[in-house]
Amino acid sequence: MTATILDGKSLAKELQAELKSDVEAFVQDKGFAPTMAIVRAGSDPASEWYARTIVRTMERYGLQAVEHGRPADIAQADLLALVAQLSADPGVHGIMIQEPLPKGMDRAAVIAALDPRKDVDGVHPANAGLLAQAPPAGRGEGAPFFVPATPAGGMEILRRYDIPLSGKNAVVLGRSNIVGKPMALLLLRQNATVTVCHSRTADLPAVCRQADVLAAAVGRAHMVQADWIRPGAVVIDFGTNPVKPCPACGAHNAEDAAGCACGQPLDEVKVAWVGDVDFEAAEKVAGMITPVPGGTGPMTNVMLMRNLLAAARRS
Amino acid sequence: MTATILDGKSLAKELQAELKSDVEAFVQDKGFAPTMAIVRAGSDPASEWYARTIVRTMERYGLQAVEHGRPADIAQADLLALVAQLSADPGVHGIMIQEPLPKGMDRAAVIAALDPRKDVDGVHPANAGLLAQAPPAGRGEGAPFFVPATPAGGMEILRRYDIPLSGKNAVVLGRSNIVGKPMALLLLRQNATVTVCHSRTADLPAVCRQADVLAAAVGRAHMVQADWIRPGAVVIDFGTNPVKPCPACGAHNAEDAAGCACGQPLDEVKVAWVGDVDFEAAEKVAGMITPVPGGTGPMTNVMLMRNLLAAARRS
Repeated sequence: MTATILDGKSLAKELQAELKSDVEAFVQDKGFAPTMAIVRAGSDPASEWYARTIVRTMERYGLQAVEHGRPADIAQADLLALVAQLSADPGVHGIMIQEPLPKGMDRAAVIAALDPRKDVDGVHPANAGLLAQAPPAGRGEGAPFFVPATPAGGMEILRRYDIPLSGKNAVVLGRSNIVGKPMALLLLRQNATVTVCHSRTADLPAVCRQADVLAAAVGRAHMVQADWIRPGAVVIDFGTNPVKPCPACGAHNAEDAAGCACGQPLDEVKVAWVGDVDFEAAEKVAGMITPVPGGTGPMTNVMLMRNLLAAARRS
Repeated sequence: MTATILDGKSLAKELQAELKSDVEAFVQDKGFAPTMAIVRAGSDPASEWYARTIVRTMERYGLQAVEHGRPADIAQADLLALVAQLSADPGVHGIMIQEPLPKGMDRAAVIAALDPRKDVDGVHPANAGLLAQAPPAGRGEGAPFFVPATPAGGMEILRRYDIPLSGKNAVVLGRSNIVGKPMALLLLRQNATVTVCHSRTADLPAVCRQADVLAAAVGRAHMVQADWIRPGAVVIDFGTNPVKPCPACGAHNAEDAAGCACGQPLDEVKVAWVGDVDFEAAEKVAGMITPVPGGTGPMTNVMLMRNLLAAARRS
């Protein structure tokens, strides 16, 4: 038996098409495009590349994104003033603070300067709190709020594939503020029995084996082995870990490794991206599984764009 | 073997003594007493009684509490204005919105009018969010925030009795915003592996039996049976359920029951308070257990008062 592949890439394409027509209707109705400000400080190449990618991607769907790049030595007061000014600007519907911020910057203060109604990334404590306090699905709605795009994408995969969650054992491996904890709270809202496990968990494989739905978000290549998975379970892999797979022994080396422990040189080996789950082994055990790449990853950007459209609608 | 009793009543007395001397030192230093406003609407007798109790209790420890009672038909705008005015008043350090609010009142809007820095009850989404986002213990501090008094009291019992939590299986039964969910997040911060279960959980007894630490907060008299408890487990019972115990068969009837199913009349039977855990049976299995009354209950008021002192210190 091989698991059904939860095809995030195809699903993201569907959602992109829906989004595109929703944005067109919005622009036609309102006469302006939903607009996001990207706040970035410093000259980290990966961060610059990511900001440019977001701008280009959003433009493709009729959304507008404006990068506000600042030098790494910007004073904290100036960065706070920028975020406050964007928060007050009625022409800005969403704001994304790109991380990492320069060293020494008070991250909490920068986030706190964000208007929660423009926090399309779901990083403001008020949004985390509204998610934590939200009633279970079907028991009325709480205040509108933003959920970080990555776990929102994972939940959308579960929803679109009609995977039942109520009364199921869901195990979330990892407890970050942008994936693990919000994913746990989202699963709880859908009436799953939710366990959060992490590096201090006594017997990780045993806890994971209890999962009907296993969500992995630890950022460690192939940490989850096939024998951690209950036969037939649904596996959502949020990991995207850069590795140099050894052509001789198959080991996953660090992305900057020059050689493998087995002696094989790795200079010519290209970096590959793998998940937190050993996909090849896991797909023989799981009932359904997201691949990496092509699983949760492609969903993230489209969920962010949906958040921006929602922010513009509420403005 | 009988379980060690986690004596919340004695512990609360210790904490009250500590609090009293801390408050005295604060008043000596600052020249004013930490002051809490209690906002209440309507004439529910239980709610009025509770407000008076809080005022009297606080005064005993040198704290000040002022009740702002309003009629049940107060306009929402007027209640919002009251909360906003108290939030802006530098002489008010803490604000407690007493529930239930009158029917039709937008609870979320009233809570949102609260200054989170005065939210000594921990009900504001920003405080729930800061708790959700707080780093694990020992990995730096997040922003200061308030935790609802009941789960804070449960955690304080665990701390004062030196009960290890890191790597332990903690199961929280119930997912309310004032007990279950914050308790789960507090246990997670202490590096427990945390499972939240609830009415939709497939096999509640089996999930509870996995707990090294079991926290019950469902509000159902004696729901947790002895065979739900792993031998030696630590049991924290947050339930305080009014019942009329039948003198003939021992069944727990509703507090307003006139007669028991066994035929025994109950008119003369006084209401008793019991926990969510069948204490008499459970104490033969558990390693440590909070009694009801005298367990988590007495801790709640003192934790609220500690929150008020903290709010005044930060003001």
